[in-house]
Amino acid sequence: MIDVAIMGHGVVGSGVAEVLLKNAEHISEKAKTSINIKKILDLREFPGLTYSDKFTKDFNEILDDPDIRVVAEVMGGLHPAYEFTKALLESGKSVVSSNKELVAEKGDELLRIAEEKNVNYLFEASVGGGIPVLRPIAQCLAANGLYEVQGILNGTTNFIMTKMVSDGEPFEEVLAEAQRLGYAEKDPTADVEGHDACRKICILAALAFGKHVYPKDVYTEGITKITSADIQYADFAGCVIKLIGRARMADNGKCSVTVYPAFVPKKNQLAHVEDVFNAVMVRGDAVGDVMFYGRGAGKLPTASAVVADIIDAVKHLSARKYLSWAPAEDGYVSDHTEDTVRLYVRVKADKCRDCLRAKAEELFGELQLLGRNGEAGDELAFITPFASEKQLMAQLAKLNGTVLSTIRLLD
Amino acid sequence: MIDVAIMGHGVVGSGVAEVLLKNAEHISEKAKTSINIKKILDLREFPGLTYSDKFTKDFNEILDDPDIRVVAEVMGGLHPAYEFTKALLESGKSVVSSNKELVAEKGDELLRIAEEKNVNYLFEASVGGGIPVLRPIAQCLAANGLYEVQGILNGTTNFIMTKMVSDGEPFEEVLAEAQRLGYAEKDPTADVEGHDACRKICILAALAFGKHVYPKDVYTEGITKITSADIQYADFAGCVIKLIGRARMADNGKCSVTVYPAFVPKKNQLAHVEDVFNAVMVRGDAVGDVMFYGRGAGKLPTASAVVADIIDAVKHLSARKYLSWAPAEDGYVSDHTEDTVRLYVRVKADKCRDCLRAKAEELFGELQLLGRNGEAGDELAFITPFASEKQLMAQLAKLNGTVLSTIRLLD
Repeated sequence: MIDVAIMGHGVVGSGVAEVLLKNAEHISEKAKTSINIKKILDLREFPGLTYSDKFTKDFNEILDDPDIRVVAEVMGGLHPAYEFTKALLESGKSVVSSNKELVAEKGDELLRIAEEKNVNYLFEASVGGGIPVLRPIAQCLAANGLYEVQGILNGTTNFIMTKMVSDGEPFEEVLAEAQRLGYAEKDPTADVEGHDACRKICILAALAFGKHVYPKDVYTEGITKITSADIQYADFAGCVIKLIGRARMADNGKCSVTVYPAFVPKKNQLAHVEDVFNAVMVRGDAVGDVMFYGRGAGKLPTASAVVADIIDAVKHLSARKYLSWAPAEDGYVSDHTEDTVRLYVRVKADKCRDCLRAKAEELFGELQLLGRNGEAGDELAFITPFASEKQLMAQLAKLNGTVLSTIRLLD
Repeated sequence: MIDVAIMGHGVVGSGVAEVLLKNAEHISEKAKTSINIKKILDLREFPGLTYSDKFTKDFNEILDDPDIRVVAEVMGGLHPAYEFTKALLESGKSVVSSNKELVAEKGDELLRIAEEKNVNYLFEASVGGGIPVLRPIAQCLAANGLYEVQGILNGTTNFIMTKMVSDGEPFEEVLAEAQRLGYAEKDPTADVEGHDACRKICILAALAFGKHVYPKDVYTEGITKITSADIQYADFAGCVIKLIGRARMADNGKCSVTVYPAFVPKKNQLAHVEDVFNAVMVRGDAVGDVMFYGRGAGKLPTASAVVADIIDAVKHLSARKYLSWAPAEDGYVSDHTEDTVRLYVRVKADKCRDCLRAKAEELFGELQLLGRNGEAGDELAFITPFASEKQLMAQLAKLNGTVLSTIRLLD
């Protein structure tokens, strides 16, 4: 029997306890030993549970207990999760985590401590909830030179985009509905502004390319400015708009890491990922495109990934697992305005649509013109040829019209 | 440095050599040691390669070489792959394999020998080519009670079905095109009759539910009888037709394992898997639906999975990995005619369509009637309510018409 502890008894933490208790028999077969929840850390009271006796408010009861070998950190937030995790790893305990914020900010340091202490720091649940993503990238795709990861990494925004497409409702209304359904929080900033997706693409980039990436270095744009008109033009172009996290290795050793809404062509599998589902597409030189799909959030899916990490940590109490990456490096993340892209552009003409179109063709050469039902007479929508974002934006400033929307294409 | 051998230098074997040589630096980082191809077994001559000196025609040169610790069996076929693999495992070498036929027929026995000898028998490449499937099921989803696996497991048939849908061409023409493109073999039986998909669903069922399943016990139906009319009716019903391998655990401890073409509703992710791509959907009690998608065949994708297994075997030279399942058991695979399904049925009326429709409604109750362009005046197509296949087929025999097609719905 191995004793474990859970830090945090919120949505994920209570799910971890539930899965460990409900699937105990099956899990002990997998782990080759039974797993006993010895302590649960939470400042709140939880009377009336079958395991109410296990709660403590004192972190030291976990840190100082030599029987506890594996701890699940499912508190979320940077502090005190960082200090607790560091102390646990330094004391020779393995830690498994669903805390994307912590891994994105401090993953390199915590992995280094785990390596020094020959214990494990695992965090499958931090990206894609219950979807196996990190371990398959690290293990199964080990033979590949990976060169790109792109994904739908946030269920809330994907739910909103799916609804905007299917029902034609504007962003604000769909957000309000998502909040009513419990898919979006009261303060939806972290989701709709892309910060949550940003943390996840940082973790994926670090794992795929071997170097830590800080969220602050990643260009991040949310979905709050997407309009129904944009969605209609996307449909005309054979695309849907999705919030895409993307990391690409360039030949010069720099990494492009971005989060922004993009026109996704319907032939890309990501275009068919709907509602709260997430998906991660990985591109390798041998394997080609591989995609992992499933529920990216929610109590039991996320708990399922945390418990799989607990099982793995229990099976490898003194054997290091595969995860590691180097510290961040200045200049490693490239300037996104130098990326080569195509842009969808929607412009309101200053004077006449035909003059605007003539000017646009003068500036960009041949354009892919888009249309939609109920298009305003002074509106022009088109897709530019490939060029650096910087160049394209400079040309757009010269248009004889007001740019209403620009959205990148996912090629 | 670890010495390995490759048995078979066909499409996959040459890909394994290529990946090991091309990505050597990256792979040695992952494996924490360099991997050296010491011998390649093949009866043919391969002059002019950079590694032509490594070839041997004598299996004993590999078996008796104590330096060779890991062997990739990529010969295919049951014999002599079975005898070779058994001898290698018994001599204490780890074996990795892409040989789905061998794993589906002898997996339980070979895994038992590997366990006794404390070596590894790994075969990620046997299902889904380069897509990480088996390891994520065994490891990442370990916390789940899994209850269903369904997948598009054969690229050739999926290419054919995709083309039949997009171009409206009949089976024979698309098959001929697939053969021209090299996606189908001259003798396409193993693919189009579902035998290849059958071996893969046997392996998935064994891994997900813990008991060996023999291909001979699995009801297997290919795609040769699908017509353009069926595809049009499927479209009318909001579905596409795909060859689906499926394994489900029933509450009575029996397992339903089948391979047949099915109407797949477009809201199921599998409906969007096109061309030669494969996908496996796994359903767990905690995680919900998870899907793995990618190229299910091809030289480098398959080689990528074999090499990932080589890396894993090299890292665990004397530590058993996770894979194991129990021997097959009589009566464990249930009779597919007892499965509850809905059927799409296309019937040519003996006399008049209206009499046929009246009889069908008398037999089945309310029907979901389907239509298509160019429908013959004496043709009726409908979807039955849920019932056991046995019952439905008995009712169909009573119809006043000739049954032209029956295809199951994937619910």
